[in-house]
Amino acid sequence: MVRPTPTKPSFRSRFRQWLGRTFTSTVAETLGAHRIYPPPTAIPRADAPAARRWGFDDTRFVWDRSGAPRLQGNRYPLCGVALPALTKFARDVLGFELSAEDRHVPLAEPHAPERRSDPALERALEQIVGDRMFTDGPTRVRHGHGHTASEIYTVNYGRLARAPDIVVMPESTEEVAAIVRTAAHHEATCIPFGGGTSVTGALQCHDVESRIIISIDLARMSRVRWIDPVDAVACIQAGAVGRVIAEQLAEHGFTLGHEPDSIEFSTLGGWVATRASGMKRNRYGNIEQVVLQADGVTAAGEVGAFTGVPRTSHGIDPETLWFGSEGTLGVITEAKVRLHRLPEVQRYGSIAFPDFAAGVGFLYALTQHGDVPASVRLVDNDQLAFAQALKPAPRRRDLPLKWLQQQVLQRWHGFDLSEVSAATVVYEGSQELVERQQKTVRAIAEQFGGIDGGSSRGADGYRLTFAIAYIRDYMLEHWVWGESFETSVSWRNAMPMIAAVKQAIRDRHAELGLPGRPFVTSRISQIYPEGVCTYFYVGFVYKQVEDPSAAWHALEGAAREAMLTHGAAVSHHHGIGQTRTPWLHRAEDDGRTTLRRKLKQAVDPHDIFGVGNQGLSERS
Amino acid sequence: MVRPTPTKPSFRSRFRQWLGRTFTSTVAETLGAHRIYPPPTAIPRADAPAARRWGFDDTRFVWDRSGAPRLQGNRYPLCGVALPALTKFARDVLGFELSAEDRHVPLAEPHAPERRSDPALERALEQIVGDRMFTDGPTRVRHGHGHTASEIYTVNYGRLARAPDIVVMPESTEEVAAIVRTAAHHEATCIPFGGGTSVTGALQCHDVESRIIISIDLARMSRVRWIDPVDAVACIQAGAVGRVIAEQLAEHGFTLGHEPDSIEFSTLGGWVATRASGMKRNRYGNIEQVVLQADGVTAAGEVGAFTGVPRTSHGIDPETLWFGSEGTLGVITEAKVRLHRLPEVQRYGSIAFPDFAAGVGFLYALTQHGDVPASVRLVDNDQLAFAQALKPAPRRRDLPLKWLQQQVLQRWHGFDLSEVSAATVVYEGSQELVERQQKTVRAIAEQFGGIDGGSSRGADGYRLTFAIAYIRDYMLEHWVWGESFETSVSWRNAMPMIAAVKQAIRDRHAELGLPGRPFVTSRISQIYPEGVCTYFYVGFVYKQVEDPSAAWHALEGAAREAMLTHGAAVSHHHGIGQTRTPWLHRAEDDGRTTLRRKLKQAVDPHDIFGVGNQGLSERS
Repeated sequence: MVRPTPTKPSFRSRFRQWLGRTFTSTVAETLGAHRIYPPPTAIPRADAPAARRWGFDDTRFVWDRSGAPRLQGNRYPLCGVALPALTKFARDVLGFELSAEDRHVPLAEPHAPERRSDPALERALEQIVGDRMFTDGPTRVRHGHGHTASEIYTVNYGRLARAPDIVVMPESTEEVAAIVRTAAHHEATCIPFGGGTSVTGALQCHDVESRIIISIDLARMSRVRWIDPVDAVACIQAGAVGRVIAEQLAEHGFTLGHEPDSIEFSTLGGWVATRASGMKRNRYGNIEQVVLQADGVTAAGEVGAFTGVPRTSHGIDPETLWFGSEGTLGVITEAKVRLHRLPEVQRYGSIAFPDFAAGVGFLYALTQHGDVPASVRLVDNDQLAFAQALKPAPRRRDLPLKWLQQQVLQRWHGFDLSEVSAATVVYEGSQELVERQQKTVRAIAEQFGGIDGGSSRGADGYRLTFAIAYIRDYMLEHWVWGESFETSVSWRNAMPMIAAVKQAIRDRHAELGLPGRPFVTSRISQIYPEGVCTYFYVGFVYKQVEDPSAAWHALEGAAREAMLTHGAAVSHHHGIGQTRTPWLHRAEDDGRTTLRRKLKQAVDPHDIFGVGNQGLSERS
Repeated sequence: MVRPTPTKPSFRSRFRQWLGRTFTSTVAETLGAHRIYPPPTAIPRADAPAARRWGFDDTRFVWDRSGAPRLQGNRYPLCGVALPALTKFARDVLGFELSAEDRHVPLAEPHAPERRSDPALERALEQIVGDRMFTDGPTRVRHGHGHTASEIYTVNYGRLARAPDIVVMPESTEEVAAIVRTAAHHEATCIPFGGGTSVTGALQCHDVESRIIISIDLARMSRVRWIDPVDAVACIQAGAVGRVIAEQLAEHGFTLGHEPDSIEFSTLGGWVATRASGMKRNRYGNIEQVVLQADGVTAAGEVGAFTGVPRTSHGIDPETLWFGSEGTLGVITEAKVRLHRLPEVQRYGSIAFPDFAAGVGFLYALTQHGDVPASVRLVDNDQLAFAQALKPAPRRRDLPLKWLQQQVLQRWHGFDLSEVSAATVVYEGSQELVERQQKTVRAIAEQFGGIDGGSSRGADGYRLTFAIAYIRDYMLEHWVWGESFETSVSWRNAMPMIAAVKQAIRDRHAELGLPGRPFVTSRISQIYPEGVCTYFYVGFVYKQVEDPSAAWHALEGAAREAMLTHGAAVSHHHGIGQTRTPWLHRAEDDGRTTLRRKLKQAVDPHDIFGVGNQGLSERS
C-alpha cells in the first residue's frame, strides 16, 4: 500500500532484487519438494523374536564353558563374553547360587488352552484375510500374553487359562474394519496385537470370556507409507516396529526420536495405546508429542482425523482417546508422526555423585535450568553394583588401574563406594547445542559434588539397556524372579517415595518368609520440571516357593501401597492393563472411573473390544 | 553393594563428605519448601470491561479535537495521540471517508430478549448462590454473546434472538455441581461463561431453545489457590482472568507464559475449552502443554484427575475431552498448570524482508533449525501499511530521517516498498539464551535478505496488539466492518493458501457489489516445524449494505472454501463454536463427527450443556 517513489534502480538495488527473486524461488522450491514413498520392507526370518522369552530368537543367556553366564549371538556389545561377576552378585545380593545344574527347565512346548470355534465366523474371516488367519497352538499362545514375569512364567511352566481362538493379520484399514464388522455380526470379541511387549497384562484373555476371541495382529500393517521432507511429517502404519521405523527414517535423514527400551519389538500402535515414553523424551517428547494424530477403527467404524496441519482447535478431539486406550476402544491403524532431522552429533556422558540425594539434586537443578540433554538417568548404588556385575572379569593388566581409580574416588574425592550414585547422559543435536549442554551439565554436576565419569561409561550404561532385558528370563530359569515397574512422582515426593517403596518390598519379603534376600533398586529414567519417572527393579529367589506369581503380587502390592501413600502415579508410561486396574481405581476418584466407563460404552456399546483393560469390560 | 576398603579419611575426603552432607541437606530443604497460598484478589471497578465493546470500559477510540482518531485513557502506549494517518488509510485503502459526523450510532441501551422464568428453579438456585444470581437485561445480554463482529453488531444495533434467562456466579466446585444438578432436575440448560471473549459464536443462545437457560459465570471462581515453588506447579480456578493470573504469579517470581491476544479478559477455563494458543508458544507451549490437568463438573458429576505428578499413563484420560469442549460437556472449574521462572531477559527484534516469500523462507529455516525465540510473527505488506497508519503524524524534524531511511531501503537494499514484509520477535530466557537466539535469527534472516529493523519496531509491533483490538468497534461505528479469523496450514500449503484466501475475499467482495474496496491482510502468528498458524484480517465498508452480517458471512464463506481446498484447518486455536460448525463437518470425515456426538451423548445424555457448539445439540 505504501507506494515507492519511482527511482532508477542502482546496481546494488538490482542485485538485491535478483537475490530477492532467488530467495523466493528457493523458498518455493524447498516448500514444493516431493513426498517420499519408501518401499515396503519385511522383517527377515533371522530377526524373529523368541516365542516365550524376551528378545530375538537367536539371543539368550547360556552357561559359558568357563562356568559363567554368557549372552549368545552377536547382536549386542555384551554378547560373547563370560560374566563371572553375575553369579557372584547373585550369591552376595540374593543369597542364592546360580548353577547350570539347578535349572527350572521350561516346557518343551507351551500348553495351548482349549480353542473355541465357530465355522461360520472363520469362513467369514477367511473371506477377508485369506491365509493370513492362524489357529495353531503356539501362535494362539503367543497372542495371549505380554511380557510380565507372571505371564512368561505361566507360558513356560504352566498353562494360560485362555488365549485367542483365531489370529488374523489384516493388510489394510479396510480389512480391519471388515474384521470388526464380522466380529460384531458373529458376536465375537477382538483384541488388537502389536509387538506383544505389554508389561501390564494388557493382552491376557479372560477365562470367563465365552465369546470367540479374535486377535488382530498388525504385523502386516507395518509400512512407512510416506515421508514429507518439507513438513517433516511421516505417515506410518500402526504395526510398524520401532527399530524398523528408525532404520527406514534414517535412510532419508530423519528420526522419530522415540526410543522406548522395547524399541526392538514394540510398535507405533502399541506406543499410542499405552501412552509410551522414550528415553530421549527431553528432546523429542512423549508419544503424544511425537504423534500428531492417530487413525483407527472402532466398533462404530473408521475414524480419521483432519490431516496435514500442525495443530487444530476442532472442538472435542475423539482421537485423543486412542492415547491410553489399550485395545479397549478399537484398533489403531496408522498415525501421522513428527520427524526430526538426524542429529549432527550424539555424545554420551556419565557422572558419579557422592550419594543418591546429590544425584537427585543435580537432576532437579538441571530441569529448573531448562537446557536438558536428550536423556539423563540416575541409578542408585544397588543398580550401579548390578551394572558392575554385568562386566567381564577385568584383565589382569587392568587391575592396577581399577584399583587406582577406586583409591582416587575414595581417598581424594571422599566418596563412600556403598553410597555412590551415577548419572548417564545422552546428548543429541548440533555440535553447538551438545557442547553447550555438556558445559551446563558439568557446571551443575559440580555444584552437587559430581565427578565426570567419562563418555564410555555413559555409552555402556545405555548400551546395556537392550542386553540386560535378556537376564530376566535367564534368572527365571534359575529360580530367580525378576520384574520391574515404573511410576511418576513430584520432585517433592520423589526421595521419600523411593525409600518407602524399597523398604516396603524388603519388609514384605521378610513377612512372607521368602528364601534368600530381595534385590530392590531404582533408577530415575525421565526428568520433568515437575518431577520424575522412576523405575524399580525387584529380584527374589522363588525356589521352593509354592506360588511365585502370588509372592510377586504380594511384593508389588506392598510397593504400590507405598506409592499411593506418597502420591506417586500407578503408571508413568506402561499403562494400566489388567494387573494395575485395582490400583488405578484406588488412585483416582469415582467420577473419573465412571466417566471412562461411559466413554467406553459410547464408543463400543457391545464390548467388541472386550479385553477388559482398565476394568472396561463387564467380563473383566 | 560394593563395599569400600576401609581407609583413614584424608582432609580432602572429609571435606568432600562434609560437602556431600551439605548437598543432601540442601536438596532436602529445597524439595521441602512450602506451598504458597496467595490471598484472594478482586478486579477493581476501574478495570471493568465494556459491556458491548471490546476492552476496558474507560478505553475507546474517539475523535480528537484535531479531527483525527485518538485512543482515550492511558492504558496503552497508543493512548492520547492523534492518528491522522488512520483516516487517510481508510480513504486510500477502503475508499471510504471516516467522519465524526457520519456515525452509525449504537442503541443507548441494548434490547434484552424476552426472559423465560421458572420460579421453582429460581428459588432452588437462590438456595445455592444467594444474591449471586442476576436476571436483569444488561447482564443477560452480556452473557448471551461473544466478540464476533456479528454479535457486537447485533447487540449495538439490533436484538439478540435469545439470551440466558438467569446468570449465576458460583463460588466453589460444590456450588457448580449443585447448580448442574438443579438444572437437570428442573430440565433447564447450562452455559458456562468465562471472559465472554469467544470469537466463534460459542456463547450464542438458540432461539429454538425452549428450556430455561442458565449462564454459569465463573467470575467468582478466580483464585490462584496455591503455587508450589518446588514442582513449579500452580492450582488456579477456571474463572481467573489471564492478566490477573500473570500479575499474581509474577509476585512470586513465576509465569504461565500463556499470552493469547485476549489475555486482558479471557480466562483459564475458556483457554482450555477452546484449546487456546498464546503468543509465546515456542517457549511455553499451547494450552494443552500449559495445563497439566483440568478438573470440572459434568452432567454425571465432578471429575478430578489424579494429581501432582508430571505425567501418567492411566488408561483413557476422560479429562483430555475438556480441551476443545466449548461448554458442551460441563463446567471446567480449576486446573493445575505448569509454571516457569520469570525470564532473566526479555528483548524484542524486528526484521524487514524484501517480500512475503522471503519472510516465509526465514520462518521455515528458523523452525527447521530449532532454536526458535518465544514469539516470531510475520506480517504481509498490507498489514505493515496498516501498522504505519496507527502511528502519530511524524514530527517535522523527523521527516528528513524518515525520508533517508526509505531511500536506504529502496536504493541501497533494493527493496520495493510495496512488497516488503516484516517479522517481529520476542526473546525470553537467560541472557545467554537470548543472545544466542538473536545471533541465530540474524544469521538466518540474512540468508533471506532480511534487514534488522531494530528492537523498538519489534516492541511497537507487540504493544500494538492490545490497543489495535479497540479499532474494530470504532470502525463499526463508522460504517466499516472488521473481522479476523485464524487457521493452521502446512508449510507446503502456506503460501498458496494465503494467496487464495485473499483473492477469494476480493473476488466475492466484487461479486456482491459491496461499496468501496475490501481490506485483506494476513499475519503468520505461530510457527511449528510442520507449518504455521495464519491470521486473516478483513475490513469492508457496510454503509447502505442491507444485511452487513450476511455480507460478512458471504466473504468468510469464500475464504473458507479456499482454505478447505488448500488443506487448511477450520481453526488453529479459536475453536469451532457455532459459526464454524458447518465448516468443521465439511473438513472432517463422518466417523469423527459421529464419534464426537457419541461422546457428548455419553457424558451428557440429557443435553444439559446444550449450547450446541460443534453441532452437539439436537437443538443446534
